[in-house]
Amino acid sequence: MNVRQEVYRAVAPEARDSAGLSLFNLFVVVTIVAAITIAILETEPTIRVGNETSFRFANLFFGSFFTFEYLLRVWSAGVNPSYRGARGLIRYVFSVSALIDFVVLIPFWLSFGIGNTAILRLVRLLRLVSLAKMGRFSTALSNIGKALASRAAELGISVAMAVAVILIAATVLYTTEGAANPNDFGSVPRALWWGVATVTKVGYGGAFPVTVLGKIAAAILAFGAVGVIAVPTGILAGSFSIAFRSSDEEQE
Amino acid sequence: MNVRQEVYRAVAPEARDSAGLSLFNLFVVVTIVAAITIAILETEPTIRVGNETSFRFANLFFGSFFTFEYLLRVWSAGVNPSYRGARGLIRYVFSVSALIDFVVLIPFWLSFGIGNTAILRLVRLLRLVSLAKMGRFSTALSNIGKALASRAAELGISVAMAVAVILIAATVLYTTEGAANPNDFGSVPRALWWGVATVTKVGYGGAFPVTVLGKIAAAILAFGAVGVIAVPTGILAGSFSIAFRSSDEEQE
Amino acid sequence: MNVRQEVYRAVAPEARDSAGLSLFNLFVVVTIVAAITIAILETEPTIRVGNETSFRFANLFFGSFFTFEYLLRVWSAGVNPSYRGARGLIRYVFSVSALIDFVVLIPFWLSFGIGNTAILRLVRLLRLVSLAKMGRFSTALSNIGKALASRAAELGISVAMAVAVILIAATVLYTTEGAANPNDFGSVPRALWWGVATVTKVGYGGAFPVTVLGKIAAAILAFGAVGVIAVPTGILAGSFSIAFRSSDEEQE
Amino acid sequence: MNVRQEVYRAVAPEARDSAGLSLFNLFVVVTIVAAITIAILETEPTIRVGNETSFRFANLFFGSFFTFEYLLRVWSAGVNPSYRGARGLIRYVFSVSALIDFVVLIPFWLSFGIGNTAILRLVRLLRLVSLAKMGRFSTALSNIGKALASRAAELGISVAMAVAVILIAATVLYTTEGAANPNDFGSVPRALWWGVATVTKVGYGGAFPVTVLGKIAAAILAFGAVGVIAVPTGILAGSFSIAFRSSDEEQE
Repeated sequence: MNVRQEVYRAVAPEARDSAGLSLFNLFVVVTIVAAITIAILETEPTIRVGNETSFRFANLFFGSFFTFEYLLRVWSAGVNPSYRGARGLIRYVFSVSALIDFVVLIPFWLSFGIGNTAILRLVRLLRLVSLAKMGRFSTALSNIGKALASRAAELGISVAMAVAVILIAATVLYTTEGAANPNDFGSVPRALWWGVATVTKVGYGGAFPVTVLGKIAAAILAFGAVGVIAVPTGILAGSFSIAFRSSDEEQE
Repeated sequence: MNVRQEVYRAVAPEARDSAGLSLFNLFVVVTIVAAITIAILETEPTIRVGNETSFRFANLFFGSFFTFEYLLRVWSAGVNPSYRGARGLIRYVFSVSALIDFVVLIPFWLSFGIGNTAILRLVRLLRLVSLAKMGRFSTALSNIGKALASRAAELGISVAMAVAVILIAATVLYTTEGAANPNDFGSVPRALWWGVATVTKVGYGGAFPVTVLGKIAAAILAFGAVGVIAVPTGILAGSFSIAFRSSDEEQE
Repeated sequence: MNVRQEVYRAVAPEARDSAGLSLFNLFVVVTIVAAITIAILETEPTIRVGNETSFRFANLFFGSFFTFEYLLRVWSAGVNPSYRGARGLIRYVFSVSALIDFVVLIPFWLSFGIGNTAILRLVRLLRLVSLAKMGRFSTALSNIGKALASRAAELGISVAMAVAVILIAATVLYTTEGAANPNDFGSVPRALWWGVATVTKVGYGGAFPVTVLGKIAAAILAFGAVGVIAVPTGILAGSFSIAFRSSDEEQE
Repeated sequence: MNVRQEVYRAVAPEARDSAGLSLFNLFVVVTIVAAITIAILETEPTIRVGNETSFRFANLFFGSFFTFEYLLRVWSAGVNPSYRGARGLIRYVFSVSALIDFVVLIPFWLSFGIGNTAILRLVRLLRLVSLAKMGRFSTALSNIGKALASRAAELGISVAMAVAVILIAATVLYTTEGAANPNDFGSVPRALWWGVATVTKVGYGGAFPVTVLGKIAAAILAFGAVGVIAVPTGILAGSFSIAFRSSDEEQE
């Protein structure tokens, strides 16, 4: 087994029979998490100020490491029969997985030119996608995907019902509360902010009705919200219950 | 195939064998969403002021288009054997679907006379109902409806239990907190507002107990609220699980 | 059929073969709901003041009606073979259902002596229990009861885990936040109030951590809370799914 | 049956055929709950001040009782054939259950030296773990454990998706709200605090977006949060549904 084959076995998840990550890929995962954490912390002024050089150095390291890792993957891809030869190389470079790896590299090198842009940095999150297809997680993702897809129409209807409930509630509260509380309920879009917070149960403290009619309408909506949440949860539960059973039966 | 038959195939959802919307109905859906969005934005003073003419024009367009669409549906309905002839036409005009289409037209034309009434405008939402009966959504709606109907008694009892829990909690907090916090707990109706917010977990910041006894009662209620939400969710999940299984078996 | 038998058929739910309420019992349900609503409204000063006579009159009516209804039930109970004769009468009077009916009467008559006591008035809620055993609701209640009972141990453990999670979180926040925010986190009991609000997701605006460590601990708890809610919901869903299936099979 | 055997039957849960606790162990449970309650109340200044002697006395009692109980367990362990003889004794002392019992004793005796440390006191909670393995709870715990373990990969992915959703949302709000509300959204870590509160639906009143773009992003996140909560709940429900069915089938 030559060096290229050994590198391939280390970097390509599909090269392993068993579930789990190779030592190299484990290190890649840790590095991705570290790079994301650094990108998050760098946005906090109380941490950034005084540590600019350290952050610059860390980003240089991450950028170099991910570039090196990308080149290793491209170089060793040819070991896989599907990516053999010059045309195989081109096919690999334009595969979804390799494109994600490449896209993630761009902000690293850009960041030295155009400064601190958090959204570009978080492109790193994309890398986690390329690792999700490995081992046990692949079956799990496919289970979740199948469960969601098999009841897409039911889930779509429950979202549409939620939107309709919120629209109706926002209109009612705009009508009943608009005069008493123009800042929060003076228009349907303003009342929608309250409606979303109530139905999704986030419950921002800022906006709530003060008139008796408004409070009654809000209480009815709060009750309806239980159904708005319970219906999609119930649909998902029913769907997962079937998906897991058929997945268990396949394995037997 | 004459013009009337072609119009029928374009406007009537039941005329298509395959799932999904015809190009015309797709445009109708987009127009309904646009009309609702315009009606919502028009209530916001910072958007309306200065754009009155644009909104007036948009509403004129929507009113004309939906009227035109309604006339097309009435004119082409006779292609369907169930609505053939003069009596068929009357039967179509008084069908639920056509009545909804007609009711939605009224506020468009009224709005030019009686001004900006958000609730009338949102009657447009009703139109979405008439489109929901198409294709895949029809099976999905029937699945959801069957699941809800088959456990209506259990869901009714869980709602009754929630109401009883809230009433008891509100009475307890009126008794323990009424003196210390008369504004929020000075009567059972006032305490009910807090009770609904707590049990449905919306959690409006405004009202919460300050005495030790009140806090203990509120904590017990908050715990009970988990059950109040979990029981109907569990009922729905169990019900959907059965409904989906029998729906899958029917298709096989 | 004599008068007593006809009264029996009107007042006793077990006298009817079909599901649903007799006309008399339907009126009783409406009266109970009205009596509870009046008792709630009476506690609100802005409604009570000026309407004392109306409320007094309403309560006199409800007290008289429920007393009359109670006497009808006692008088006609003997039609049922289980309650025949003098000893049957005594057995009926001390049956759970009749005792509830009697207990509910007490606060009506007391209220004329000892004034406005909301908790006594809400004893009226108990009456709803005696009506819950009828028709379809009886099967539904038994389904819910069986589902809860069959997984009582699992539900108990999930409650115990929730309590343990809250206790640990409250202790951690007492340690990390106690100095910075003594009013809300200066002792474990105070931090418990925050812990319950967070885990049950009621989220009272009053208390939240301000230090970095406290916020990290609170964020971890908020994540854990998803599990604390999801586990009992999942248990109930699984349990209802089995209960409904066996209930459906019995009916076939 | 000698004294040692009788003590063994009283203290060792595995010595009883039937489910439930022996009288002695019931007393132990009550004492553990009392000890935890005392440890909690002791941290509250308004309760502690003036009652220092009572708390000291209570802790002395609990420390002595748990030490006495620990010695009883060690002494009687040899009745169990697995722990016979000197080597069996050592094996018992280093068993998980006995180690927990011992670890819990340390803070009692330390507390007389190093004063009031709430976290040490709450080590008492650990004791509940050692009691959880008894009777019916043992099956229930194993049911819950099996349900969680069988879908660990799916649950892991749903947690990862939740983290990714929160990270993306926090970055978006840092970008849209950072300038208008630097205190709450001036960096990704600050925005994360809001993101966690929104997605887990705790909804602390403190931080919420004020710009239009920020509100739209927050509303989208609030909607996404329904899925973030519903997916793991659905997975658990599906998993419990299967676990309960196979547990029921085993018992038959």
